[in-house]
Amino acid sequence: MSVTSAAGFSASGIAAGIRSSGKLDLALVVNTGPHRTAAGVFTSNRVKAAPVRWSEHVLAGGELAAVVLNSGGANACTGSEGYRDTVATAARTAASLGVPPGQVAVCSTGLIGQRLPMPALLVGVDAAASALSTAGGEAAAQAIMTTDVRPKNTHVRSAHFSLGGMAKGAGMLAPSLATMLCVLTTDAVVEPATLDKALREATRLTFDRLDSDGCMSTNDTVLLLASGASGHQPSITSFTDALTAACQDLATQLLADAEGATKDISITVASAASEADALEVGRSIARSALLKCALFGNDANWGRVLAAIGTTRAQFDSERLDVAINDVWVCRSSTAAASRSTVNLTEREVRIQVDLHSGIEQATIWTNDLSLAYVHENSAYSS
Amino acid sequence: MSVTSAAGFSASGIAAGIRSSGKLDLALVVNTGPHRTAAGVFTSNRVKAAPVRWSEHVLAGGELAAVVLNSGGANACTGSEGYRDTVATAARTAASLGVPPGQVAVCSTGLIGQRLPMPALLVGVDAAASALSTAGGEAAAQAIMTTDVRPKNTHVRSAHFSLGGMAKGAGMLAPSLATMLCVLTTDAVVEPATLDKALREATRLTFDRLDSDGCMSTNDTVLLLASGASGHQPSITSFTDALTAACQDLATQLLADAEGATKDISITVASAASEADALEVGRSIARSALLKCALFGNDANWGRVLAAIGTTRAQFDSERLDVAINDVWVCRSSTAAASRSTVNLTEREVRIQVDLHSGIEQATIWTNDLSLAYVHENSAYSS
Repeated sequence: MSVTSAAGFSASGIAAGIRSSGKLDLALVVNTGPHRTAAGVFTSNRVKAAPVRWSEHVLAGGELAAVVLNSGGANACTGSEGYRDTVATAARTAASLGVPPGQVAVCSTGLIGQRLPMPALLVGVDAAASALSTAGGEAAAQAIMTTDVRPKNTHVRSAHFSLGGMAKGAGMLAPSLATMLCVLTTDAVVEPATLDKALREATRLTFDRLDSDGCMSTNDTVLLLASGASGHQPSITSFTDALTAACQDLATQLLADAEGATKDISITVASAASEADALEVGRSIARSALLKCALFGNDANWGRVLAAIGTTRAQFDSERLDVAINDVWVCRSSTAAASRSTVNLTEREVRIQVDLHSGIEQATIWTNDLSLAYVHENSAYSS
Repeated sequence: MSVTSAAGFSASGIAAGIRSSGKLDLALVVNTGPHRTAAGVFTSNRVKAAPVRWSEHVLAGGELAAVVLNSGGANACTGSEGYRDTVATAARTAASLGVPPGQVAVCSTGLIGQRLPMPALLVGVDAAASALSTAGGEAAAQAIMTTDVRPKNTHVRSAHFSLGGMAKGAGMLAPSLATMLCVLTTDAVVEPATLDKALREATRLTFDRLDSDGCMSTNDTVLLLASGASGHQPSITSFTDALTAACQDLATQLLADAEGATKDISITVASAASEADALEVGRSIARSALLKCALFGNDANWGRVLAAIGTTRAQFDSERLDVAINDVWVCRSSTAAASRSTVNLTEREVRIQVDLHSGIEQATIWTNDLSLAYVHENSAYSS
């Protein structure tokens, strides 16, 4: 299972010397057709990396022939020179593949504020083009890893079409979009407008609901390429369902590999007056540093949950909040209920449920604990 | 220097047995007049502790004879029983002192969700009343400490009047108001409306600009009591200036004692289109877990600053941002300038300057780094 699991795609991952470690650092994904339909969603950070601005621009045409991705540098905050580096990367890729430069998206990940080593990168593009193979998806997924411990791949099969995908991301996971690069592929026949709509819906329900550390990246990119190689045109519903499953699979892998995390925490806010209320409350809880430290310490400190809920504008009665941690209702009507000592927090998975008693909507946000390893890893990141 | 440094006040701090450690845990501050003018500001958290709701209620009368404060329990999320505990505490204090219960404010700090040990607390109130003294301010400041390492006291002297004060707070420092209790006293003659206006202005410029860990408390309270014992009525300007100095002194002490912090970080955002823009950008930077980890690791990772700025709605051109860390302009026009390796981060004090090139307003936010000790302390807080 990988980005080449869907028919009509080849990929490669090579070591171009961008990373001093000598690890794989350049990936190429090519759509061999017959169609080249594509859609993308990007970080909402106003400080956008050069490759994000370029890829948004080329996506306006609705077609992509290839995506070239590098680790070892984000090419963010690199000025007009950095943008020219991205354009040169797309141009070299286009020349190697014999496709228009305006159909080549570029993704970069790594440290902000440093230029990429362009001579090595451009030679690497040619090498990556030579290494393309329908079995190259796994190498591509490895080449985009930064602090990721494991590569993330997915494959969702429907009766008449297939979806493949890869992602990277470990720190800086926050909406909208985690710090992540993600390339999804499908051999379904999909109209451009449908592809765009399906991708926005799938990311809204999956990646946008990961909030690992509240930090929003400059480089987040999710691209979806459709080759049409299956010859089958699914309904928008069945296509969106399969795409959402692929995104959820990758999102779960991102959460499980978050920097230094020892807990995977789901926060489900129910009986909300609106989905927006449920999301606001869920995100507020997911961003409580004090709660995340408490859970790292296996402490079912529900007072931290109530303090976080109280900072929101959601509709609720502050005397009628219920909170369960791992199915034990430790707080009923905003006061202590079952003893917190009865909550078993020894497993990695933690489920927090909040009942707002204000309506019928609900939403789930996923986050991690705040651990000693997170601080350690991020205090030594760029050194 | 303490809460009894202003004429017309006595105080005490005793061990009532609320904390199992046997430390001082109950404080009393009494205004001996001739005036009893008072003002207060409280947490904007919608989940408010019982003592906050009670004290907001009694402050509506504009007069306070006394403030009774306990550590060892926040009396938050304790339902109607918890509220009755607060009322009983005020009533017992009033009876001990011979003042109206409606002129006694109550403050509590400690773990959320547990009832206070009322028999011990009520006996303690009588003992605290017996121990009142014009030299009791320092004991009072010790009795309200929780995870604080040091007590926080202040004394600001003007030509004709004086201000005293004490505060507690170490974790959960966030706007609006840090997790803190603060009692300020003055012997100036001040009208109720002036007192309220001066307190709101002073807290807006000091406590509200501390953002240690982005977590907003259920119990934050700042009270200001004026005895009029000096017989002098200062202008609102000179009174507000002196009050702001007292609040700034206490705010600086809170920052220096923040849980696990190894850096005191000031973030000054200049050339903003509005003060609100400068504050939004400053708070966004102060809440970047990734930046705070980097500074803990002595890493001048300015890319984290730009990523944080990009999440705001403030007016700026994303290609024209300048950032200095400890006076080294590591980022000019949103790209690398002076080498980050030239930034000296060995001192506790860190100064971050941001130039938005969008106007003439500016504001400063104070925060701390995110350290291994912060995670350790908060993962073991309630156990």
